[in-house]
Amino acid sequence: MAKTSKSKKAADRADEAVETLVRGTGTAAATSDAGDAASDDAKPGTASKGTGKDKDQGTAEQEIARDTAKKSKNDKGKKAKDGKAKDDKAKDDKASKKSKDDDKGKKAKGTRDKKDKGAKREAALDGASSAATTGSLAFGDPDFTFSETLRAERGLVLADVDTRATPGYEGDKKSAAMDLVEGQTELSDLQERLWANGKDGDGPSVLLLVQGMDTSGKGGIMRHVVGATDPGGVKYTAFKAPTPEERAHDFLWRIDRALPDPGQLGVFDRSQYEDVLVVRVNELIPRSEWMRRYAQINAFERAALARGITVVKVMLHISSDEQKARLGERLDRPDKYYKYNPGDIAERARWDDYMEAYQAVLAKTSTKGAPWHVVPADRKWYARLAVQQILLEHLRGLDLEWPAATFDVATEQERLAQT
Amino acid sequence: MAKTSKSKKAADRADEAVETLVRGTGTAAATSDAGDAASDDAKPGTASKGTGKDKDQGTAEQEIARDTAKKSKNDKGKKAKDGKAKDDKAKDDKASKKSKDDDKGKKAKGTRDKKDKGAKREAALDGASSAATTGSLAFGDPDFTFSETLRAERGLVLADVDTRATPGYEGDKKSAAMDLVEGQTELSDLQERLWANGKDGDGPSVLLLVQGMDTSGKGGIMRHVVGATDPGGVKYTAFKAPTPEERAHDFLWRIDRALPDPGQLGVFDRSQYEDVLVVRVNELIPRSEWMRRYAQINAFERAALARGITVVKVMLHISSDEQKARLGERLDRPDKYYKYNPGDIAERARWDDYMEAYQAVLAKTSTKGAPWHVVPADRKWYARLAVQQILLEHLRGLDLEWPAATFDVATEQERLAQT
Repeated sequence: MAKTSKSKKAADRADEAVETLVRGTGTAAATSDAGDAASDDAKPGTASKGTGKDKDQGTAEQEIARDTAKKSKNDKGKKAKDGKAKDDKAKDDKASKKSKDDDKGKKAKGTRDKKDKGAKREAALDGASSAATTGSLAFGDPDFTFSETLRAERGLVLADVDTRATPGYEGDKKSAAMDLVEGQTELSDLQERLWANGKDGDGPSVLLLVQGMDTSGKGGIMRHVVGATDPGGVKYTAFKAPTPEERAHDFLWRIDRALPDPGQLGVFDRSQYEDVLVVRVNELIPRSEWMRRYAQINAFERAALARGITVVKVMLHISSDEQKARLGERLDRPDKYYKYNPGDIAERARWDDYMEAYQAVLAKTSTKGAPWHVVPADRKWYARLAVQQILLEHLRGLDLEWPAATFDVATEQERLAQT
Repeated sequence: MAKTSKSKKAADRADEAVETLVRGTGTAAATSDAGDAASDDAKPGTASKGTGKDKDQGTAEQEIARDTAKKSKNDKGKKAKDGKAKDDKAKDDKASKKSKDDDKGKKAKGTRDKKDKGAKREAALDGASSAATTGSLAFGDPDFTFSETLRAERGLVLADVDTRATPGYEGDKKSAAMDLVEGQTELSDLQERLWANGKDGDGPSVLLLVQGMDTSGKGGIMRHVVGATDPGGVKYTAFKAPTPEERAHDFLWRIDRALPDPGQLGVFDRSQYEDVLVVRVNELIPRSEWMRRYAQINAFERAALARGITVVKVMLHISSDEQKARLGERLDRPDKYYKYNPGDIAERARWDDYMEAYQAVLAKTSTKGAPWHVVPADRKWYARLAVQQILLEHLRGLDLEWPAATFDVATEQERLAQT
C-alpha cells in the first residue's frame, strides 16, 4: 500500500474519532469461564494439554519461534474459522504444514476482505467456545481479533468484567508462553517493517498506551511485549508525577513530545489518562478543570490519528483481591521490595474511586478512532499475550510492505562491484 | 555490596582511567581457527555437534532458557576450569544437573576471588583451545571473561585481527543461538537488579557503546542483545549527523545528555567516537581540532566513571570483503533496501582511512577504566553472543544484590492486611 493512501486512511480514521462507539451492548471480556486457580496458574482441566509443538524442535529457539509463527498464520486461523479445533487435528495440521507455502498467510493478510470481519469473528468466537478442551488458539487468523473481543464498546460496565477471564484464548499458561514467543518474532518483524517505512520521514507510526492500577502488570508488558522489539525503533516513555517544567505547561505538553515519529513504535507506560485518574481521585485540581480534559484528550488523540499515528489504548484490569495478593508478594520477596511503596496502600484505599474514574475514562474516551481495550489481567500470562496480540493486529492492519528502493538497484550493484 | 562502596569503586576506577593499558603484547581476537565458511554459516567440523540441549525441552521456551541459563552458570564454568570439555561429558553434566543446587552459581558469583582471575582465564583459554571439537562454551564461569579475551590491549594491531575468528567460543552458529537465548534471560534479570538499585537515585549504571563500520551489525546487537532488556530501564541513543542545535555546542554536549542515569542501561549506537572517525576521515574539521578530541574523550569518560557509570566500549570489526558481501545482500533483497544508502559506497572507498582512524582510537582511548573490546564480527552469531557476554560480565561484576526494603516490612504487611 502506498504511503499516501496510508495517510488518507489515517485522516479518515481521524474524522471518525471522538464519536464514541455506538454499536451493540456486548461487554468486553464477558466470555469468561475462569476458575479460581491461583494467580498465574494454568487453567484447570487444560494444564496437561499442550499446543502440540513442544517436541522435536531441535533447532535454535529463535528459528523455532520464527518457524512456528509462520505456521500459526497459516493454520491456526483456519481452525478458528472452522469453528471446531480438535487437539488431534491441530497436531496433524502442524505435522504436515512444513510442506505448505509459508507465504500464504502473508498474501491472505494483504487481500483480506475487511467487511467479512464481523462474521468471521463470530465464527471464531463460536470456535473458541466449542473447542474448550484444546490448548490451541485462534489468533493466527488475521481476521480474528483480540482487539475486537476486548474493545470497550459503549455500555461496558467495568464492574461486570471478570478479571480472571481469558477471552478469545483457550490455551493455558504453558501454551501462552509459547504463543508469546511466537508473537515476539512476528512483532519484531512487523516493527522492522514499520521502521523501514518511516525512513523517509512520512510513514505511519503506532502508539501503545498502557494504563492500569498499581501491580496490574504494566512492567511485565514492557518487558515481555515491548521488550521483543528493536529499541532503536521504539520511543518509550514512563510518565511519572510531572516535573516542575512539565507542570508549567498544559497537561498534554509532555504527552505531545512523547508521541512517536514516523516509523516508530511509541509506548506510554501510564499516560495523559493519569490526568483524569490520579488527579481526579485525589482532587488535585477542581472538578470543572478535569471534566474538560476528556474532550481535550479526545481532540488531542484525533490530531495524533491525523498525523498517521495508530493509537492502541489498553487498560490492564485486575481485581482488588488480586492487587492485595500482588502487594503481599512484594512484601514477601526481597527481590520485589523495590517495587513496593508505602503510598500504595493509601491509593489502594481509594479503589472504588479509581474504578469510577476508569469507568468515566472508558465511557468518555473510547472513541471509534482510538478505542480502549479492557484486558482482564489477574492472569499475567493472558494479559501479556492479549496485549501483544492487540498490538500485532494493529500492526498487521497497516499492511506494511517493505519500502521500494529509493535508488537504482542495478546502478548501485555495478558501483559496489567496482569497489 | 553497599552503594557507598560501589561509588568508591567507581572513583577508584576513574583514577585509573586515561592511563592506557600497559600490559603484555597479546592481541585481542588472535586465537583464530576460523575457516572460510560463508557468512553466518556454522563452522566446518562442528556443525553437527550441538550443546546437548536440543531435545526434551518440553516446556515453554522462556522456562527452558531460564533453566538452562542457571545450569550454564553451574556447570560450564567448571568445564572451562578443567581445561578439557568433552562433548559427551558435557551432555552427561547437563543431564544430571537438574538435581543440583541452582543457587550455587549465584553464591560463587558473589564471593569469587578476583585476584585469581588471571590464572583462571589462562586455564579457560587453554581449555578452549584444547577442546576445539566440542560445541560447549566456557562463558558461564564468572571468572572467565570474554571481556578479557577481546579487550584491546596496548599494541593491538587492528589489521592483525582475524575478523572471522570466534575467540573464546567453541560452539557453532546453532549453539550460539541457544546460548544467546540463555544469556537474554540472565541479562534481563541483571538489568532488573541494576534498575532496582537505581530506584533511590544513586545506584550504578552501565553504558554499552557500540561502534563499527557500515553493515558491521550494530542493528543486530540492538535487536538481539539490548532488545532482551526492559525498555523502561534502557536509555538508548542512536547518534546521527549532529542537528543544528547539537552543532551549536561542543561535540560532547549531546553525548553527556545521553549518559545513563543511576539504574539505567545506557546504549550508544555510534557515539562520541564518530567525532574522531567520520569527522577525521572526511576532514570535516582541521586536524589540530580532532587531534585534541582523544584526550577530551578520555577526560569525559573518566568523569562518567566517577559518576558510577561502567563504560563498556565495543568495536564490531568486519573485513572489507564481508562489508562488500553485506552491501550486496542489501541490494539483492527488497527487505534490505531500506538499509542501503548510495553514500555507503563513497564511505567504503575510504576503508583504509577508516581502519587507520579506528587504529588511532584504540591506541589513544583504550584506557584501563574504559578499555575497548574488539569483536570479530564477520560471523554475526558470534558477535552478538560476544557482546552480550561482555555486557553480562560487566553487570555480574557489579555484584548487584536486590536492594534492602526502605520501609518496615512487618508494618506494611499489617497495613495491607487491613485493606
